[in-house]
Amino acid sequence: MFEFRIDGICGAARAGTLTLPRGDVRTPAFMPVGTQGTVRALSPYDLRAVGTQLLLANTYHLHVRPGEDVVATLGGLHRFMGWDGPILTDSGGFQVFSLQGFRRVDEDGVEFQSHVDGGRRRLTPERAVEIQWALGPDIAMALDHVVSGIAPRHEVEDALERTARWLVRAGERHAALAAPAPDRQTLWPIVQGGTLVDLRRRAVERVLDGASWTGLAIGGLAVGEPRAAMYATLEALAPWLPPSMPRYLMGVGFPEDLLEAVARGMDLFDCVAPTRNGRNGQAFTPDGPRNVRNAAHRLDPGPLDPTCDCETCRTYSRGYLRHLFMADELLGLRLLSLHNVRFLTRLGEDARRHIIEGTFVSWHTDWLARYHAGSGT
Amino acid sequence: MFEFRIDGICGAARAGTLTLPRGDVRTPAFMPVGTQGTVRALSPYDLRAVGTQLLLANTYHLHVRPGEDVVATLGGLHRFMGWDGPILTDSGGFQVFSLQGFRRVDEDGVEFQSHVDGGRRRLTPERAVEIQWALGPDIAMALDHVVSGIAPRHEVEDALERTARWLVRAGERHAALAAPAPDRQTLWPIVQGGTLVDLRRRAVERVLDGASWTGLAIGGLAVGEPRAAMYATLEALAPWLPPSMPRYLMGVGFPEDLLEAVARGMDLFDCVAPTRNGRNGQAFTPDGPRNVRNAAHRLDPGPLDPTCDCETCRTYSRGYLRHLFMADELLGLRLLSLHNVRFLTRLGEDARRHIIEGTFVSWHTDWLARYHAGSGT
Repeated sequence: MFEFRIDGICGAARAGTLTLPRGDVRTPAFMPVGTQGTVRALSPYDLRAVGTQLLLANTYHLHVRPGEDVVATLGGLHRFMGWDGPILTDSGGFQVFSLQGFRRVDEDGVEFQSHVDGGRRRLTPERAVEIQWALGPDIAMALDHVVSGIAPRHEVEDALERTARWLVRAGERHAALAAPAPDRQTLWPIVQGGTLVDLRRRAVERVLDGASWTGLAIGGLAVGEPRAAMYATLEALAPWLPPSMPRYLMGVGFPEDLLEAVARGMDLFDCVAPTRNGRNGQAFTPDGPRNVRNAAHRLDPGPLDPTCDCETCRTYSRGYLRHLFMADELLGLRLLSLHNVRFLTRLGEDARRHIIEGTFVSWHTDWLARYHAGSGT
Repeated sequence: MFEFRIDGICGAARAGTLTLPRGDVRTPAFMPVGTQGTVRALSPYDLRAVGTQLLLANTYHLHVRPGEDVVATLGGLHRFMGWDGPILTDSGGFQVFSLQGFRRVDEDGVEFQSHVDGGRRRLTPERAVEIQWALGPDIAMALDHVVSGIAPRHEVEDALERTARWLVRAGERHAALAAPAPDRQTLWPIVQGGTLVDLRRRAVERVLDGASWTGLAIGGLAVGEPRAAMYATLEALAPWLPPSMPRYLMGVGFPEDLLEAVARGMDLFDCVAPTRNGRNGQAFTPDGPRNVRNAAHRLDPGPLDPTCDCETCRTYSRGYLRHLFMADELLGLRLLSLHNVRFLTRLGEDARRHIIEGTFVSWHTDWLARYHAGSGT
């Protein structure tokens, strides 16, 4: 259980198979985000239909509402949300450190204010593991201390070292919980270090120091830094990562970022962009994003994306989708979210095929050229 | 085409089969309402899955946005909204007379203000027919002059006589349009007359006077009058209606009203209640409506309605549905709408079976007793 097999390599890009309690995940793979135990506007049936293999849910949000006790009583996260495929939960760190409101970090953990009821709560490396054990995802993440992408070096360094110390505590707590049921859930560490390459490498060393993991995550990117800085960081970091471990790049992405990251050796991705942008009327297409409200679509009988096989593109015209958004109809939010999730899922599938066939490098160059050319118009 | 066959009678209740261009409709049948060319929060796939046979769309709303020209250019209403089953459109009368804003009636028609752009528009019996011909539903309705349920007698009478005169004009225009394609669409008249039985009977006489129709609608009920008055009106009216014509009771209903109307000889129904109430967190159950936000559901692992076969009841717990509403998640709106539409659709299916088997009278009495007993708790 929790093994990762490499199925193909092309350039720095990898195709793999990750074995999880509820099924295999073929990488590269995009995870839709089900923040509150539901991927906004989509049902588990929709997600299966568009080829989703693995979902992300947010530990912070589920902890403050409805509470992990409620989820556990109702049969755990899979049963709760009606999704029997693999789930990964984040550590809660990103939310605690990025949401508005009171927050205080010390060596023990972090105290914060719930955005739901304003109450003070405390998250520690042990609590984050316990909450995720109660929720029951296939993959849990160790609590990390997240700092701003433009934080000064000493803050990045301080957070990195604290994250490393927290990881030891998280690992011990998880090992104790998992001892009677080792195949239930795995715990992955998060590599921090901003865009400072030497700190990133140090974070990798800390993470791997004397411990063995079934995978790891790269945090603290795609948080507002220039795209070039993210790509450069990944490029400098990848050679230091153990080739045998799946690499989850947190918070990515937009189509172009996902593909650039695959080209730099990343395997798993999550982002709210496909659903959030979908709800705002933005659809991903091979020629760049399109706003469905655009008046040009008013009488357009063609599909949103003629290359797409999703229900939205197979069933509805651009003219109809535009009407749904102009008329503030809920179905519009759903149909664009569905298409965008399919778009990123298919991007992972296509990348995988080209990696295995050895054509990834030229394919991804062409793909990006078309996408960027269309985005500029 | 447009024939109605009686499949069974029990008491005053009827089971029938209505043949329409896009398929047969087995009655009694509930029509979900797709006001703006979409049943709010549901897709055509969802509607098929819950057994919807016939949809309603609103002529007024589609006329003001996106405009019947846009719908026609995009292939007509069926293609536009991705629903290849039968569709009925209303006449626009109810909306023009019930929405806020300027309105002036004369013998020619009615002038009103669009709720979208505030512009003045005019609807006449001929225009209402032309708009619906462009939209392309299987069943169109003739424009009616709708007055308040508490309007004085002379106003009800005046509106009834005007509706009768408008019907002649609508029928002539429809006959001209349909001459080259008689199997494309049928036109039904609307019987007005408030809760005044003699005026209702006069309206029926006017409607049937020298014309032949494939069905008719009862308008001006379920608009705020006491339930007993609606039931009494239907009971007094039914014997005057031609037995061979399908009878569409507009704007009904809530489960109990639908069943009471079936018991009084009505065949077709439409109402926004299942979707609107669903979006407000109210679920229909055999024991009366339930609000899913109720704290009692917090840890409830059971389905919303254990007797129901819809996706919502087969997949999710009450605890999860409550969470979706407490967390303002879009999926909640969809899942409750889906259940409520299934509930009313199944009520039609069950009524039909009991009518054909000759057990309707006792079944409907028991059903209503259970529903009312549960509603009181």
